[in-house]
Amino acid sequence: MIKIVEWTDEGVVMIDQRVLPTEEIYPCYKTYPEVAKAIKDMVVRGAPAIGVAAAMGIALGAKTLPDTLEAFDQGFEKICQDFAETRPTAVNLFWAIEKMKLTLEACKRDKLSINEIKEELVKQAIAIHRADITANEEMGRNGAALMPNEGVVLTHCNAGALATAGYGTALGVIRAARSAGKNLAVYSDETRPFLQGARLTCWELQKDEIPVTLITDNMAGHFMKLGKIQAVIVGADRIAANGDVANKIGTYMVAVLAKENNIPFYVAAPLSTLDLKIKSGEQIPIEERSSLEVTHIKGQQVAPIGVNVANPAFDVTPNQYVKAIITEKGVAYPPYTETLAKLFE
Amino acid sequence: MIKIVEWTDEGVVMIDQRVLPTEEIYPCYKTYPEVAKAIKDMVVRGAPAIGVAAAMGIALGAKTLPDTLEAFDQGFEKICQDFAETRPTAVNLFWAIEKMKLTLEACKRDKLSINEIKEELVKQAIAIHRADITANEEMGRNGAALMPNEGVVLTHCNAGALATAGYGTALGVIRAARSAGKNLAVYSDETRPFLQGARLTCWELQKDEIPVTLITDNMAGHFMKLGKIQAVIVGADRIAANGDVANKIGTYMVAVLAKENNIPFYVAAPLSTLDLKIKSGEQIPIEERSSLEVTHIKGQQVAPIGVNVANPAFDVTPNQYVKAIITEKGVAYPPYTETLAKLFE
Repeated sequence: MIKIVEWTDEGVVMIDQRVLPTEEIYPCYKTYPEVAKAIKDMVVRGAPAIGVAAAMGIALGAKTLPDTLEAFDQGFEKICQDFAETRPTAVNLFWAIEKMKLTLEACKRDKLSINEIKEELVKQAIAIHRADITANEEMGRNGAALMPNEGVVLTHCNAGALATAGYGTALGVIRAARSAGKNLAVYSDETRPFLQGARLTCWELQKDEIPVTLITDNMAGHFMKLGKIQAVIVGADRIAANGDVANKIGTYMVAVLAKENNIPFYVAAPLSTLDLKIKSGEQIPIEERSSLEVTHIKGQQVAPIGVNVANPAFDVTPNQYVKAIITEKGVAYPPYTETLAKLFE
Repeated sequence: MIKIVEWTDEGVVMIDQRVLPTEEIYPCYKTYPEVAKAIKDMVVRGAPAIGVAAAMGIALGAKTLPDTLEAFDQGFEKICQDFAETRPTAVNLFWAIEKMKLTLEACKRDKLSINEIKEELVKQAIAIHRADITANEEMGRNGAALMPNEGVVLTHCNAGALATAGYGTALGVIRAARSAGKNLAVYSDETRPFLQGARLTCWELQKDEIPVTLITDNMAGHFMKLGKIQAVIVGADRIAANGDVANKIGTYMVAVLAKENNIPFYVAAPLSTLDLKIKSGEQIPIEERSSLEVTHIKGQQVAPIGVNVANPAFDVTPNQYVKAIITEKGVAYPPYTETLAKLFE
């Protein structure tokens, strides 16, 4: 299995997803600001993977904090704040920060020493990493039954091993369905501007010998209309209480096209992606990224200098387009306001 | 006005659209196989521009043919055949070839000498060029009334001056609406894989000081849902008798999204784009292009080596998504089988 994020004594080791598939390198990020920058710069991306990387980054930062409780607390707060500012849309980031804060609170309640607290924070980060893989595997088992027995499943962006601690959410479901004997191939939207589909989904599916066909984002509807696609499955960056799904820009278009062509549209995401505090998708903050991601591809200029650019990194797919939301605790169907809440019981 | 295709004594001069917007060069294509290759390689693209370039290429080739009628006829047939094989979807290509063949027939009926025939063919090619600009201007006037008085119009690919002999079909309508005092801005889909939107539409609108915002193809739905787009207008490569529209890949997705968001979707095309011999869009041949267009951008590899790729250059938008078809002879509304036929009366 590809190692996406790994805790080591020297720091957090992450596969640099920006240079895939032409280079496969695993730099070690030795300080917490380096880890935060790696999240912001999309060395690591995908909501669950961002959560894991942030937890490890917080543990890494905490290790260097002073040994008096007050100074430790202040430093810890600053570290958490710095991570909170890296990517606004993926709620798993805030979930992981919260988990680390709760761990600190528990340690303080138990009156652990600062050194013990530092160890506990590392243990918690590693536990979050392990739990994410387990959640993906459960999600895979829960979702496999929904996949067609054979045919093509379209996915958008990368909700695979590379977007998580390993195995993947959407691609985890496809992996599990294939393991269960279903004869599935994948169509992968290239996913401009960052090309996660072309660079990452195709790369990890090729490694696993899962048949994959790369298409540009604007081809998905054409192949749906031709009857070439039997199901769509994507991940999520944040899901509101009513089942509205924030995910990589373009997801909404795929969902509308799927509905128009009577193709089921599924979302696979761990509970850490559900944000039940938020009632509907309209309240989810949408990150706007640099125009250079659109005007330049691998350093090559593809648009006139000075052209105005919009670059929202995510969009919101309203719940009426979502046939089911697959989690590690089970599959939720509409009405989501009821069924998503039940998953937490 | 930018010169897209121009007849000169040395050959056919065309702006090389492959290197825009970073370079603006006007090579001269001195033999007909050079012109045919330029069409195939997309030096020139856009259905009307392809028609004009092919007519000029045929006239250029005819100039070098032997002076005996039989040999001339044979050579002429071969030239037409070579152009017919360049791009299968754009019907304007076949329309232009047919026009040149009819010109030859007329010349033979009038018993002109071979030298006179050669001159007539050049004149016809130049007339086709002029007529295309006139048609675009008429289309602009006919379509301007349909545009909103203010707001944003989304377009896909490049149906501008660069896709025609000048002025443009879809962008011609926007130009005419602005000339008529309407306060319109444009959102331009980048249009992968060839990036005609990013490279060409943005470039020519910038030159004309028409406000343009570049987005990736998968953002169009997001901005429609947010209410940022008041109308969609695109060109066409071939329109069937029932109003089904073959146009650049991704057009179908934009059309479905427009319908879902109650935004009018218009097509602007000259009569030479209508193919009434073809009953419905299902019969329109769809060109499949090289996988390298998808896996490499400006020579930079963006997908794993050996990945399977689909690269259809066009899709078909069924007539039920098309609010109106704007031509130089007037605006057609559903039912198109009746209204399109009437345009030829």
